[in-house]
Amino acid sequence: MMTTAPALAVRSTALQESLVELIDLSLQAKHYHWTVTGKEFRGVHLQLDEITDAVRLWYDDVAERLATLDVAPDGRLATIVAGTPLPAAGGGWQRDVDAVTAMRDRLGEVASRIERRAAEIGDEDLVTQGLLLEIAGGLQKHAWMLRVQAR
Amino acid sequence: MMTTAPALAVRSTALQESLVELIDLSLQAKHYHWTVTGKEFRGVHLQLDEITDAVRLWYDDVAERLATLDVAPDGRLATIVAGTPLPAAGGGWQRDVDAVTAMRDRLGEVASRIERRAAEIGDEDLVTQGLLLEIAGGLQKHAWMLRVQAR
Amino acid sequence: MMTTAPALAVRSTALQESLVELIDLSLQAKHYHWTVTGKEFRGVHLQLDEITDAVRLWYDDVAERLATLDVAPDGRLATIVAGTPLPAAGGGWQRDVDAVTAMRDRLGEVASRIERRAAEIGDEDLVTQGLLLEIAGGLQKHAWMLRVQAR
Amino acid sequence: MMTTAPALAVRSTALQESLVELIDLSLQAKHYHWTVTGKEFRGVHLQLDEITDAVRLWYDDVAERLATLDVAPDGRLATIVAGTPLPAAGGGWQRDVDAVTAMRDRLGEVASRIERRAAEIGDEDLVTQGLLLEIAGGLQKHAWMLRVQAR
Amino acid sequence: MMTTAPALAVRSTALQESLVELIDLSLQAKHYHWTVTGKEFRGVHLQLDEITDAVRLWYDDVAERLATLDVAPDGRLATIVAGTPLPAAGGGWQRDVDAVTAMRDRLGEVASRIERRAAEIGDEDLVTQGLLLEIAGGLQKHAWMLRVQAR
Amino acid sequence: MMTTAPALAVRSTALQESLVELIDLSLQAKHYHWTVTGKEFRGVHLQLDEITDAVRLWYDDVAERLATLDVAPDGRLATIVAGTPLPAAGGGWQRDVDAVTAMRDRLGEVASRIERRAAEIGDEDLVTQGLLLEIAGGLQKHAWMLRVQAR
Amino acid sequence: MMTTAPALAVRSTALQESLVELIDLSLQAKHYHWTVTGKEFRGVHLQLDEITDAVRLWYDDVAERLATLDVAPDGRLATIVAGTPLPAAGGGWQRDVDAVTAMRDRLGEVASRIERRAAEIGDEDLVTQGLLLEIAGGLQKHAWMLRVQAR
Amino acid sequence: MMTTAPALAVRSTALQESLVELIDLSLQAKHYHWTVTGKEFRGVHLQLDEITDAVRLWYDDVAERLATLDVAPDGRLATIVAGTPLPAAGGGWQRDVDAVTAMRDRLGEVASRIERRAAEIGDEDLVTQGLLLEIAGGLQKHAWMLRVQAR
Amino acid sequence: MMTTAPALAVRSTALQESLVELIDLSLQAKHYHWTVTGKEFRGVHLQLDEITDAVRLWYDDVAERLATLDVAPDGRLATIVAGTPLPAAGGGWQRDVDAVTAMRDRLGEVASRIERRAAEIGDEDLVTQGLLLEIAGGLQKHAWMLRVQAR
Amino acid sequence: MMTTAPALAVRSTALQESLVELIDLSLQAKHYHWTVTGKEFRGVHLQLDEITDAVRLWYDDVAERLATLDVAPDGRLATIVAGTPLPAAGGGWQRDVDAVTAMRDRLGEVASRIERRAAEIGDEDLVTQGLLLEIAGGLQKHAWMLRVQAR
Amino acid sequence: MMTTAPALAVRSTALQESLVELIDLSLQAKHYHWTVTGKEFRGVHLQLDEITDAVRLWYDDVAERLATLDVAPDGRLATIVAGTPLPAAGGGWQRDVDAVTAMRDRLGEVASRIERRAAEIGDEDLVTQGLLLEIAGGLQKHAWMLRVQAR
Amino acid sequence: MMTTAPALAVRSTALQESLVELIDLSLQAKHYHWTVTGKEFRGVHLQLDEITDAVRLWYDDVAERLATLDVAPDGRLATIVAGTPLPAAGGGWQRDVDAVTAMRDRLGEVASRIERRAAEIGDEDLVTQGLLLEIAGGLQKHAWMLRVQAR
Repeated sequence: MMTTAPALAVRSTALQESLVELIDLSLQAKHYHWTVTGKEFRGVHLQLDEITDAVRLWYDDVAERLATLDVAPDGRLATIVAGTPLPAAGGGWQRDVDAVTAMRDRLGEVASRIERRAAEIGDEDLVTQGLLLEIAGGLQKHAWMLRVQAR
Repeated sequence: MMTTAPALAVRSTALQESLVELIDLSLQAKHYHWTVTGKEFRGVHLQLDEITDAVRLWYDDVAERLATLDVAPDGRLATIVAGTPLPAAGGGWQRDVDAVTAMRDRLGEVASRIERRAAEIGDEDLVTQGLLLEIAGGLQKHAWMLRVQAR
Repeated sequence: MMTTAPALAVRSTALQESLVELIDLSLQAKHYHWTVTGKEFRGVHLQLDEITDAVRLWYDDVAERLATLDVAPDGRLATIVAGTPLPAAGGGWQRDVDAVTAMRDRLGEVASRIERRAAEIGDEDLVTQGLLLEIAGGLQKHAWMLRVQAR
Repeated sequence: MMTTAPALAVRSTALQESLVELIDLSLQAKHYHWTVTGKEFRGVHLQLDEITDAVRLWYDDVAERLATLDVAPDGRLATIVAGTPLPAAGGGWQRDVDAVTAMRDRLGEVASRIERRAAEIGDEDLVTQGLLLEIAGGLQKHAWMLRVQAR
Repeated sequence: MMTTAPALAVRSTALQESLVELIDLSLQAKHYHWTVTGKEFRGVHLQLDEITDAVRLWYDDVAERLATLDVAPDGRLATIVAGTPLPAAGGGWQRDVDAVTAMRDRLGEVASRIERRAAEIGDEDLVTQGLLLEIAGGLQKHAWMLRVQAR
Repeated sequence: MMTTAPALAVRSTALQESLVELIDLSLQAKHYHWTVTGKEFRGVHLQLDEITDAVRLWYDDVAERLATLDVAPDGRLATIVAGTPLPAAGGGWQRDVDAVTAMRDRLGEVASRIERRAAEIGDEDLVTQGLLLEIAGGLQKHAWMLRVQAR
Repeated sequence: MMTTAPALAVRSTALQESLVELIDLSLQAKHYHWTVTGKEFRGVHLQLDEITDAVRLWYDDVAERLATLDVAPDGRLATIVAGTPLPAAGGGWQRDVDAVTAMRDRLGEVASRIERRAAEIGDEDLVTQGLLLEIAGGLQKHAWMLRVQAR
Repeated sequence: MMTTAPALAVRSTALQESLVELIDLSLQAKHYHWTVTGKEFRGVHLQLDEITDAVRLWYDDVAERLATLDVAPDGRLATIVAGTPLPAAGGGWQRDVDAVTAMRDRLGEVASRIERRAAEIGDEDLVTQGLLLEIAGGLQKHAWMLRVQAR
Repeated sequence: MMTTAPALAVRSTALQESLVELIDLSLQAKHYHWTVTGKEFRGVHLQLDEITDAVRLWYDDVAERLATLDVAPDGRLATIVAGTPLPAAGGGWQRDVDAVTAMRDRLGEVASRIERRAAEIGDEDLVTQGLLLEIAGGLQKHAWMLRVQAR
Repeated sequence: MMTTAPALAVRSTALQESLVELIDLSLQAKHYHWTVTGKEFRGVHLQLDEITDAVRLWYDDVAERLATLDVAPDGRLATIVAGTPLPAAGGGWQRDVDAVTAMRDRLGEVASRIERRAAEIGDEDLVTQGLLLEIAGGLQKHAWMLRVQAR
Repeated sequence: MMTTAPALAVRSTALQESLVELIDLSLQAKHYHWTVTGKEFRGVHLQLDEITDAVRLWYDDVAERLATLDVAPDGRLATIVAGTPLPAAGGGWQRDVDAVTAMRDRLGEVASRIERRAAEIGDEDLVTQGLLLEIAGGLQKHAWMLRVQAR
Repeated sequence: MMTTAPALAVRSTALQESLVELIDLSLQAKHYHWTVTGKEFRGVHLQLDEITDAVRLWYDDVAERLATLDVAPDGRLATIVAGTPLPAAGGGWQRDVDAVTAMRDRLGEVASRIERRAAEIGDEDLVTQGLLLEIAGGLQKHAWMLRVQAR
């Protein structure tokens, strides 16, 4: 990894921002997993658990890629609060359709941001780019499975 | 579950506060998992992953006990930030001994709080009490395995 | 287990009555598993199978606790018929929403009875109390997952 | 499944009656599993659990075959009580040899009835016939393993 | 397998036609698995995958029974197109209820054809008959689980 | 199993003869498994092991069906020697093609005998008939996979 | 996924065409799996099953990527017939060497087409490109293992 | 764990004494596992191995609870010898009935002692109490399965 | 393996004779597995199956060691009949105690013969010696578990 | 096993003494597993558990070899206390380096004794010799992994 | 794969050189795995085994990609010796810190070389590029986990 | 392990030389695994992978036995090159028959060397002798399975 400082800054920013968004996303998925109600409860409840599991694995990879680039990842609460672009989840019980559309939008938003970062990194760091693309693709797939439910 | 409103308030507060603390604890365990350095890196890195896994399962149980009591759990970021009593984790790379003592203290703190809540619930809701005691015992065990490393 | 005869009678009655209710509950869960219809068929069908499996394990534990206390458990058909407090399941095909509310009510009813018995045993037999509480908590959790579907 | 109403009645009666007998059989196997005593306790206790597991799987298949034929299966307690041809299990503790002979007889009885029904269905519904034959053969095999113990 | 040529022709035709129908059925199940939309998306999506898996295993058995009878199975695209009696699946996105009813009808149709062929083979080749009956029974069971959803 | 003595004799003879042939078949499969040579050694060696495993399971089922019919199975060496219709395997090293054709013929021979016995039993004992047909079908399938190698 | 309509058309055409080719490829692999003969039967038979399994997983990914891009995948028989560029498999029994060379050529052809499409997509959609490259690489690897057998 | 020194002494004494008894119990179970003879050898031999495994897991939990309470557990031979209240196992070969009654009595004795200690701890340390009760219940269950064999 | 012809003869004779005895032993174990009766049926039935499995693995190793020494193993029926030193198993149903003593004696006899052969090979072929010793030790262990049942 | 009484005495003494030492060794490994402290806690704690598991399996084999030789093994506490040559483990908390060196020495001591006994048995009982050598080699390997830590 | 000869030369050189380096790396990892000493022995020993396993899988992929490109891979000893750019591992026992820094440097070196080659291949062969990037990323991650230990 | 220095030298030389040969053998097996061509490609390719896996496990055992004897194993490339007695593998693509005979000869050569060393160690170190014999036997078995293919 023979890289210039600016290039390193680009990719570590990309990874750190993705880390923040993915941690928030996983917390929101769990929150909806617990508070969802309605006829579709069971399916949505299970699906959100699968999403949580996937997102947790992805942010672990993102954080460890940062460490691999010799930049200490920052997964602290204050950092997440300050950095997350996502709207907060709704409090109290949530109708199944609302949980589905809320998570669909958040997954789509994070996927777009991560895909854009992957593009910006370009050829500077193809390993990091590959990781971000894998995550973006995975988020998009989960978003599809929520989107068609809300149609 | 034929219970009075005050009794329900006690136990749901106990569960909601525990939920907040455990989510923060799991995030801090992951943060140290990524940023730890030093000769003991590997052992601490693996141990913190086991702690993260255990704490995640425990807070899932806590949140679902809340839902079972017909109280919507609140696992939103703002709620965690507002409610957590834990000091923030240190930023940047962390020496292994510092990660060990930091997590030892946090585990001990959360264990004490949860054990105290279990005692306060008393016979009002023995199912909730049992869940909190199981978690407190598990946290205390992990704290021992960190404590003796720091001796 | 150095116990007085009255105390033994309390706990063995508690266990025997719980055994009867849980066997009936498992049979009703299977009955609805087979006869449910409607858009939510698949989710309800699967969920009722999980409930059946859980309840079967629980009544096995209850019966074996009775045997451990040197009281022969009674799982005979006539005993269940005579002792069960549960209303019968509906005959013929059942709409999904009806299956959900019927099982929600029966789970709730049995959970309340078992939780009350656990309280009555008090400190007389903490092992039996612990078993009954574990079962009550489990039943309540399944009841939540049905209740929120029927909202 | 282009079938006449009378033919459907034959096969659905055959399945419903088998369902009733198998549910009773599984409850009796569990009852003896808990109450058996004597030197052969362990072997009989384990064997009766295997029988219970097998019979539960078989009656699930029978009930779902009924549903497949568009007839709602009836697994309700009152239906089982009213329909079972089996003598009740003995109450209280049971000597191992008595448990063995009792279950041997009941397995044999149910196997004969189910085999006879399979024959009566004849070519009308070979799928149902095949299912009943598989169950009859399995019951007969378990009966052998009890019969030779009682010799 | 000492058989006359006409008898061989009957059973190999039965198997070859079943092979064609089952391959088409598996492709349609996958097609609906991908294109289904609506609130029931998740349940239908998963169920169609289970159907695809089952049908693939069944047509493998059918083709290998043909080979066992020393007749080369024909699983070529042109053969399937020419031979399938099934209506084509709908193009574009499919509402969940439409996917359910479409697959219910196709499963029922193929089950009836295969059951009829099994009857026609009669005692000529009981091994082949047994295979076809097992498949017919399995298809009918899946059809039940779709049928009750569309009620 | 309410059967006449002659009918019992037919089916127990059918099972006992099949037992003898299958034991011999399994021993020959192992013998060729060890002594095969030539370019196809590895494939034939592995395939013969799969055949041995399958045949061993089948003769266990046959013997236990006999016991289930209350007839003591006879798996003694002298009985096998006296009863087997199969030609002996060749001694010394065996060319792969010779092993393949020898086992193809023996599998075919035993399959034909067992299929014929299944037919003779007719409706007298459909459980036994079903078992023999399953074995015949399995043997025929293995024979196909050897036959096409020798083409 | 902020993309222009033309770019979306490129990638969805690439995916849809790949879907068609892979479905046909999997059907041909199965067809040869059943009809192959000759000394190498066993190895080729097993290898074609591995290829079928891999290709099925790949076309599932391709179709779901299409759905993720909000384009309904088309896996209908008529679409495959109309779109496949592959020559039909041979009818009747197939010599092992012929099966090997036929599948080698088809794998190579589809791999080339998919690799070319991946190149054409370029940076427009790196997630889709990555998926197609993974499939192309996998197909090429299977092609190698067939190619060296035919040397 | 904010506790007074006397309270700590009670619970650590309870745990240390239980540790001593359970280690002795596990050694005796193994000793009888090896030396048992008689018709019931196999069942008793296997059952004693299950008991050994369970007891080993339990004393590991007890010792680690001690360490968690910051008291060094003492599992040394001299400590066990000095502290065990159990009569020694018999030397030489042991009749099955003697092994069963000997282990029944020892399991019962240790269960009673541990249950009594759990009661004495009371609300002082509910985590420790819960652990001891779980062990007592498990020992009592194993005692039942031996007791009914000796009837 | 640079060995003289006489030394090779010693070891190949030892292996071939062991092969014969172990095949016969496995057939007898299965025969008793099927025909055993009496109160101990279940334990003996299961134990004989474990013995059969172990002996089958051992004779496979013995035969393949022969092949490794470039001597074709002979596992043909006529060879076993001609070479086995074991008395035949009893025909018809067998009392449990008779099955136990019969197999105890046969295991002991074969163990002694194989152990003696291992000693005779001496340092000539330590690999073969090691294999025979492992088998002898295993047979002796099984013999112990039967011997103590017959006391 | 045709052996003279003196030879039997040699090997049974060797096995009985090894049994005593290995039981003590396993107890000491567990004791250090619980009481170890210091920076290397985690590694040593886990390693001692692996040692405990291995040693438990080995002493089970030793005791069962004794039983196989028709000598009743003696695993009673008093026998272990009287016979063990090992120094007691230290009481209270143990520094990691002290736990490592203590167990290194004890493993080495037991390994030497068992290896010496294996040599003394010589050709008298090669099966027993083989067992003791396997254990000695395993102990030596564990000793290496401790020894290099203490360098 | 329609490629020009020069382009093929670039990628096959890249793969062959990577193959050489990765084989050497795996041998060095094993060498240090065996010879490491010091307090961190256990962690380093285990970590190096994980690295060995990963590197072995990677070089298998590299070699098979070469074969897929129709270039025979060269994994011969002389080729590795001639081609490896890595300094030899140290002989004799190795301090843990030295093993860690040595492997850190070698992993880093190989990762850089492979990442550079991936860049040079550019769009010529995206499949090969992807494989090399995956390996480079994996090596870099392992290097991180060693690097932070040596801080 | 109380041994004289000369004895130690014999066994450590034996182990070190075996280590060198086995590492070379594993590299050659992999090399042929990649480069083999011809009709038997698949079987030989898979078989060489099994050989590689077995040889890797064996040389790990050999190296760790050296370390156990307190001699640092030497697995460095230069040591292997200098010490291996094996002819190099052929470069470029290899016909299946050539790969088979090449590996057959190398396996035979290494087996003979290791068996001879085992004999030379004699009673000096029976643990090491046992390890070498196990490896020699395993190599010889693999050699048989190649040898009979080349006949």
